[in-house]
Amino acid sequence: MRISELSKQADVPVATIKYYLREGLLPPGEPLSRTQASYGEQHLRRLRLIRALVEVGEVPIAAIRRVLDAIDDESMGTHDLLGTAQYALGPHIEPPADDPDWQTAGEQVDALLGELGWQVHRQSPAHTMLVQAIVALRRLGLPTDVADLRHYAGAAQDLAEHEVAWVPDGPRADAVEAVVVATVLYEPVLLALRRLAQENVSARIFGGCD
Amino acid sequence: MRISELSKQADVPVATIKYYLREGLLPPGEPLSRTQASYGEQHLRRLRLIRALVEVGEVPIAAIRRVLDAIDDESMGTHDLLGTAQYALGPHIEPPADDPDWQTAGEQVDALLGELGWQVHRQSPAHTMLVQAIVALRRLGLPTDVADLRHYAGAAQDLAEHEVAWVPDGPRADAVEAVVVATVLYEPVLLALRRLAQENVSARIFGGCD
Repeated sequence: MRISELSKQADVPVATIKYYLREGLLPPGEPLSRTQASYGEQHLRRLRLIRALVEVGEVPIAAIRRVLDAIDDESMGTHDLLGTAQYALGPHIEPPADDPDWQTAGEQVDALLGELGWQVHRQSPAHTMLVQAIVALRRLGLPTDVADLRHYAGAAQDLAEHEVAWVPDGPRADAVEAVVVATVLYEPVLLALRRLAQENVSARIFGGCD
Repeated sequence: MRISELSKQADVPVATIKYYLREGLLPPGEPLSRTQASYGEQHLRRLRLIRALVEVGEVPIAAIRRVLDAIDDESMGTHDLLGTAQYALGPHIEPPADDPDWQTAGEQVDALLGELGWQVHRQSPAHTMLVQAIVALRRLGLPTDVADLRHYAGAAQDLAEHEVAWVPDGPRADAVEAVVVATVLYEPVLLALRRLAQENVSARIFGGCD
């Protein structure tokens, strides 16, 4: 199909498709003439993946490029691929050196991970994200206690067991794409359901009578 | 304290503090002269709250202003305050009119909410966020099934029961601030722990042998 048809089917403006082509997020089409190219189903599919990561996952373009490169790298195993996708998601925060609050929170997280027996990298963005949130809560006079963190860790563990073991049948490219998509796009599902659950509990406890 | 001391204690540049003053996020200090003012503990505390929402919660400035106005509005009950905070967090997406995928996903979500018996607004940003994610997953060939959504809803319900019932003792202003902070800042805690749990499960299932 021509770029105009691709634009229509994916509901993405032609200028945006050209931007993704320039940025290397989409592979070039089959050349038809000096100025025209033909695009296939795999372009449509990749375009939908990019739009979902941008709009729903709010993943930056540079991070999407790293995720797509990992999906396309046939030599990469599933564990490394998931790690690459998570690393690309960020956040990329440099923990401040010699900050006693960061040090204390880091030790609390490491103690929790040790107790849980989780095999994870201390340098992963998720580790830093967790430490940063704990530091912020403490500085606002709301120190997290270990029982709280264990409660969240238990819920997370339960979800992850369900999520990671799920690898769909089919060719490797489709399977790894599905795993990455599910990892990213179930984050808004989880956050949205948590907010809706809070609204419901709040209506029951506080609604109309405080 | 002078603005320079406030800047040092909160670790926020003077120019940023001046920006928050202009935007009405921080109340003005006590005037000392035509060009100087004195700031107190409540400024330091508010500044730390703003920074936590910006840096950890990634909440936009306009949304923070709405949240702070709600915290400061003594006539607002806890349920409305939580609703205001959640609404401010967004995302503010306009669902496309007459899109059959959005319609189907919306019906799926409403069926789930009906089954769960949750009292929530169909127009809340969290509802739209959930529908958007389901549409994106379906378009990528990964339709969510009801059992999956129930699983996430169960985890969310369990966390929310724990979270919303928790209102610390003390003056109203401190209590509502704490509730809002916990609502926002436990999102990165939950996401970070989910990613760490995934890394651990992935290491066990795929690590070194795929």
